[in-house]
Amino acid sequence: MNRTTPSSYPVAGYPDRVTVYEVGPRDGLQNEAALVPTEVKAELVARLLAAGLPVVEATSFVHPRWVPQLADAEDLLRTLDGMDLHHADRRDLPVLVPNERGLDRALELGCRHVAIFGSATETFAQRNLNRGLEDQFTMFEPVVARARQQGLDVRAYVSMCFGDPWEGAVPVEQVVRVGTRLLDLGAGQLSLGDTIGVGTAGHVRALVRAFTEAGVPLDRLALHFHDTYGQALANAEAALGEGVTTFDASAGGLGGCPYAHSATGNLATEDLVWMLHGLGIETGVDLDALVATSTWLAGRLGRPSPSAVVRALG
Amino acid sequence: MNRTTPSSYPVAGYPDRVTVYEVGPRDGLQNEAALVPTEVKAELVARLLAAGLPVVEATSFVHPRWVPQLADAEDLLRTLDGMDLHHADRRDLPVLVPNERGLDRALELGCRHVAIFGSATETFAQRNLNRGLEDQFTMFEPVVARARQQGLDVRAYVSMCFGDPWEGAVPVEQVVRVGTRLLDLGAGQLSLGDTIGVGTAGHVRALVRAFTEAGVPLDRLALHFHDTYGQALANAEAALGEGVTTFDASAGGLGGCPYAHSATGNLATEDLVWMLHGLGIETGVDLDALVATSTWLAGRLGRPSPSAVVRALG
Repeated sequence: MNRTTPSSYPVAGYPDRVTVYEVGPRDGLQNEAALVPTEVKAELVARLLAAGLPVVEATSFVHPRWVPQLADAEDLLRTLDGMDLHHADRRDLPVLVPNERGLDRALELGCRHVAIFGSATETFAQRNLNRGLEDQFTMFEPVVARARQQGLDVRAYVSMCFGDPWEGAVPVEQVVRVGTRLLDLGAGQLSLGDTIGVGTAGHVRALVRAFTEAGVPLDRLALHFHDTYGQALANAEAALGEGVTTFDASAGGLGGCPYAHSATGNLATEDLVWMLHGLGIETGVDLDALVATSTWLAGRLGRPSPSAVVRALG
Repeated sequence: MNRTTPSSYPVAGYPDRVTVYEVGPRDGLQNEAALVPTEVKAELVARLLAAGLPVVEATSFVHPRWVPQLADAEDLLRTLDGMDLHHADRRDLPVLVPNERGLDRALELGCRHVAIFGSATETFAQRNLNRGLEDQFTMFEPVVARARQQGLDVRAYVSMCFGDPWEGAVPVEQVVRVGTRLLDLGAGQLSLGDTIGVGTAGHVRALVRAFTEAGVPLDRLALHFHDTYGQALANAEAALGEGVTTFDASAGGLGGCPYAHSATGNLATEDLVWMLHGLGIETGVDLDALVATSTWLAGRLGRPSPSAVVRALG
C-alpha cells in the first residue's frame, strides 16, 4: 500500500466483485450549475470507459426545459459514435427516459439500456412526475413494455427510499411494494436512492433484507447513496455486508458542491473505489486513470472536486 | 424520522452505547489556520459539554513554538474554572502532554486525565518526536509512571496505525506491538489513529481483531479516523461491527478544510452522531445543540463547516 493504492483486507462474506454504476455524466452533470459543452461531456464519457468503469450512464432524454444541462443528449450520443471507445459500444451506455417520447428518442439512437425514474413516496411522485404513487406505474407500464419488446434492458430508479422531505421516514415495506411493482412491470434492476441522504447503516441493512425476504435476488438491486449527511460510504459498507453488488457513484463527486450544503451530493466514485479495493473487491476500475479524469474535469468546471480521494491524489 | 433526526434501525451485535470522544478543541483547533481567542475556545468547550458530549479534550501543553494555536492552554483552563459548566468538572477534561514539562503543567492545574502522543512507525516517531520507535517508550515511561502515581488516567494516541506517508502500509502486528507496550506502561486507553486517512473497512476490522486476539479488551481501544480519503465514517461503521465503543471526532469537522485537500480532516462529530443515532446507539449527545454550536463556531471562524450534517441542518 502507498498513498495511491489501499492495502487489501478482504472481509469474509463480502462480495468478490462489485459493479460500479457510473452516473456522473447524467446524474452528476444534471446537478452541476455549469453548462458543459458536448465535446467535454463526450471526452468525459470516453475517459470514464477507458478507466474501466463497466457501466457509464451517458445522458437523459428529459425535456430541456427541466434539465437544460443535458439538452444535448442526441448530439452527445452522435459525437460518441464518432469516437474510438476502445472495447465499449456506445449503444450499451444507459440513458434515462422519462416517458414514451424519451423512449422513442432512445430507440432511434439504438440505445440498448434505458432507465426510468420512479418514486417511493406519494409527495415526490406528485411533485416530480405529476402523478400519484400508484399512477406512476400506469405511466411506466407502456414505456417498459415497449422497451422490453424491443429487446432493451430497463433500470428503474426509485427515489426517496429512506426519507422524504415532506413525509419524513419512508416505511421499508412501502419501498419494497413500489420496487417489486417496477420489477413486475419488467425492470431488470432497481436503483434504490437515498435522495435526501438521511439513511444510515442499519436502515440500509433493513431495506436490503426486506427486498431479499420478498424474494428479490440481490443482483436486481443497486444502491444509490447521497452524501448530504455524510453517510454515503458508510451506507455502502453496510450494503456490502448484506451482499449488494451494484453501487451507483459519480466520478469526482460530480453534482455535489465542494463548498456548501448540497441536496444532491452523490457518492464520489473514487471514494467508493478506494474502499472497495481496500476490501479486496474487484471492480475493473483503474483508480489512477479515474482520478486523472476527475482532476481534468474539475479544471474544466473551474472548481475543486468534491471527492476526497481526488483531492488527496489529484 | 425527519430531516433533523434519523430513523433508528439497530443492528444485532452492535454496541448499545458509544462514547464519543470530542477532540475538536484540541486536535481540531490545532489544525485550524485561524488563531482562536481564548474566550471563544472556552465557550466552545462549555457548549460542547452542554450538548452532552461525555469527554471533551480541552487543550494541549505542547510548546507554543510547535502549536501556537494552543499557546493559551493555561489561560483556557483558568477561564473555564470561572464558568458554570453545569454537571461537568473542568479537571476531568483531558489535556495532551508531550513530555514531563507538559505533565508538570497539567498537574499544577489539577487535570485528572492526560494524553500522550506516540507513533506506530519509525519515521513518524523520528519526525514528530525526534525519537526512534523504541526510544519513544523510554521517553513516555516516566511521564506515564508519574501521572499514574498521581492518580491520573493516561490515554495514549498512536499515530500512523494504517498507513505512513514514508513507509507505506503499516503491519497490523507492529501497531499491536506498539499499542500493547503503551498499555503495559500504564496507559488506560489507546486511540488508534488513521493519521493519513488511507485505512479502509477490512483493515479496520483486522486491526481491531489483532488487538482483541492479543488480549486487549475492547474498552481499551478508541479509533481516531481521518477523512482525507473519505473513509472515516465507513471505517467507524466497520469498527462498530467489531465491538469498538469509543470513537474520536471533531465538532463540525474542526481541523478539516471545507475547500480543499486536508491532510487532517477529522471525522465530524455530527456526522458520526447521525450514524450512531440511526443505529439506535446511545451517545448522550443532543445533536441539535451540537449542530448549533458548530454553526456558531463556523461563523466565528469565517468559513463553512466541513461537516455534512452541520451544512444540512445548520
